[in-house]
Amino acid sequence: MLNFDFYAPARILFGKDEEKRIGDLLKPHSKKALLHYGGGSIKKSGLYGTVTASLKKSGIDFVELSGVKPNPRLSLVRTGIELCKKEKVDLILAVGGGSVIDSAKAIAMGVYYNGDIWEVYETHKTIEKALPVATILTIPAAGSESSGDTVITNEEKRLKIGYGSARLRPLLSVMNPELFFTLPKEQLAYGVADMMSHVFERYFTNTTHTDLTDGLCEATLKTLMKNALLAHKNTRDYDAWSELGFAGTVAHNGLVGMGRAQDWACHGMEHELSAIYDVAHGAGLAILTPGWMRYVYKDNVNMFVQFAVNVMGVEGSYRDPDAVIQEGIARLRDFFGKMGLPGTLSGLGIGEDRLEEMAKKSTGEAFGREQPIGGLKKLYWRDVLEIYNLVK
Amino acid sequence: MLNFDFYAPARILFGKDEEKRIGDLLKPHSKKALLHYGGGSIKKSGLYGTVTASLKKSGIDFVELSGVKPNPRLSLVRTGIELCKKEKVDLILAVGGGSVIDSAKAIAMGVYYNGDIWEVYETHKTIEKALPVATILTIPAAGSESSGDTVITNEEKRLKIGYGSARLRPLLSVMNPELFFTLPKEQLAYGVADMMSHVFERYFTNTTHTDLTDGLCEATLKTLMKNALLAHKNTRDYDAWSELGFAGTVAHNGLVGMGRAQDWACHGMEHELSAIYDVAHGAGLAILTPGWMRYVYKDNVNMFVQFAVNVMGVEGSYRDPDAVIQEGIARLRDFFGKMGLPGTLSGLGIGEDRLEEMAKKSTGEAFGREQPIGGLKKLYWRDVLEIYNLVK
Repeated sequence: MLNFDFYAPARILFGKDEEKRIGDLLKPHSKKALLHYGGGSIKKSGLYGTVTASLKKSGIDFVELSGVKPNPRLSLVRTGIELCKKEKVDLILAVGGGSVIDSAKAIAMGVYYNGDIWEVYETHKTIEKALPVATILTIPAAGSESSGDTVITNEEKRLKIGYGSARLRPLLSVMNPELFFTLPKEQLAYGVADMMSHVFERYFTNTTHTDLTDGLCEATLKTLMKNALLAHKNTRDYDAWSELGFAGTVAHNGLVGMGRAQDWACHGMEHELSAIYDVAHGAGLAILTPGWMRYVYKDNVNMFVQFAVNVMGVEGSYRDPDAVIQEGIARLRDFFGKMGLPGTLSGLGIGEDRLEEMAKKSTGEAFGREQPIGGLKKLYWRDVLEIYNLVK
Repeated sequence: MLNFDFYAPARILFGKDEEKRIGDLLKPHSKKALLHYGGGSIKKSGLYGTVTASLKKSGIDFVELSGVKPNPRLSLVRTGIELCKKEKVDLILAVGGGSVIDSAKAIAMGVYYNGDIWEVYETHKTIEKALPVATILTIPAAGSESSGDTVITNEEKRLKIGYGSARLRPLLSVMNPELFFTLPKEQLAYGVADMMSHVFERYFTNTTHTDLTDGLCEATLKTLMKNALLAHKNTRDYDAWSELGFAGTVAHNGLVGMGRAQDWACHGMEHELSAIYDVAHGAGLAILTPGWMRYVYKDNVNMFVQFAVNVMGVEGSYRDPDAVIQEGIARLRDFFGKMGLPGTLSGLGIGEDRLEEMAKKSTGEAFGREQPIGGLKKLYWRDVLEIYNLVK
């Protein structure tokens, strides 16, 4: 086990009706909030009315900024920063999924950052201060409700870059599984692929002696797969959505990756797809992950046998580890297929013409500063291109 | 799954040499600290020197209060409160195991409490404020390094009472597995029994649809048992102690019990043993837990079959659940035996003469206000007495 620093202070308020007390929850922390959200779905569902009524009842003044899109845009972040400064906002309440929360975090640090906030994403410099962010989660997927991470897309530069800081951990997050009932089945599938990837990126490691986190990862993955199929069958299954929502937070609050070298190559490779083709992050991950596994598993056969046996339930001869691993990967691919996720880049409408460009961007080769990605196996741009080609 | 409120803000700094930077870690939070510890062991091991040197280097002034004993005493807490007030201490650094940390938490809230601090334990009233507590853990067991709980013994009244508040969650806790190398094997065994009990108290529930936390509990329990045997064999096994230390924190920071009704009967029954006989908490738990299981399992056979199969690895016919469960309990008892823990109260030097008195205290019957204990099965004093008799 490696040394680690674990800090996950976000308070999670979980269950039916929790969103109704958002005003009371925020009252000790805010006089004037920015209410940040996407489009009309929270108005249609009635959530907007519930939240604004609760804020008003608790005497919290607020201004609004809507219009967050998937792969949240830098331009809207800049608008939000100006708005918060002008209106002297002291807290941001993000009502939505990971895109809304990531956008809120970018605004939260932008308010105090002296310069253009994109610099922080590009240079990964340390920030000293950010507004507190609270969230009401409407899509379990990104884990942004407990993490200190944010990913923003610079639509002019066609770049999608992540940034993380303990100062961006939300103050509190409300999670009512009933709010997930109206999600389209694609969103469920994308979300599950993303949550599973958050575990995979931590799980697949060359670090040894990681019993506890191995077990936590495996429990989280099995919970996600079992309950994804249940929610896919019945989109109003409260218990299934409960497991998915809670598992999504555990997947990305840091815990299951403590003390282990992490990977993150699949996220890196996927960000390039999203940046150029604006595809759903989860769909990209579901395609890339099995391809990545096939490409890298020989570098740590034991780890992948463990995955096949403990997570995918393969019962096989350990004297033939390749067969066990291939069966594990096939079962994972099969699971994604049952969730309705595409298996190839072409199934996502991505052709072959820009694969090399994306591969070169993913490692920095395109900018003349190649750094391999991936913890379990170092991937250079030619490796990334091979993986893209494996799943094209 | 039940609604829940999860809040575990304690930062965990884990690994080799982490204690050497305690001064730097505390500098943003303290000008003058109380250094709180037990006896001479931290001086003998050199930890005292490391910590005080680091505090001095960072310019943190400090006063000291040593003398914390297992089952920490109210009298020392009162001394600590007066000392902190007089010396205008702004933070308490607890260097030790659960007893030292629990004592530190009692002092931390006593400084601001208007009245005798024992009232808070007796009445369970809400506290508004407490000094921040930081810890350097020397015994993985109580989980107090991340929890908001404290248990104090009133030695005059022979009462041991617990209290919990989110305001008592430590600010940060340092955990270096090397600090555990010098623990006697009994301490290892007591600690493991306590950590396992923290999971058991949450795991055994009548709440249904708890896939994720079931899996997290099972992973934590299996990690504890496997690595306890390794550390028992080689007390300098860094990896085994790493797993034990980390698992002890996960066992008691709240996570694995979220969304489930919890039990806590074994802790209640054990506190009566410790209060009167001053026995090691873990030893009492290791005796009581299998007895409790035998007494209650018929109230939730499916839960105990799951335990036997998923945790204790029993492969049996599910058409004979009793046999599966009995084998599971026998294996648990066997594990405790391998760790050198006694199997009966008499093995701990506890006779039969005060069993009824303790049973009546455990439910409040002795004070004319009986409230059954236990979530999975409600236990009245006659039930508790039967369990004591099962393991006498």
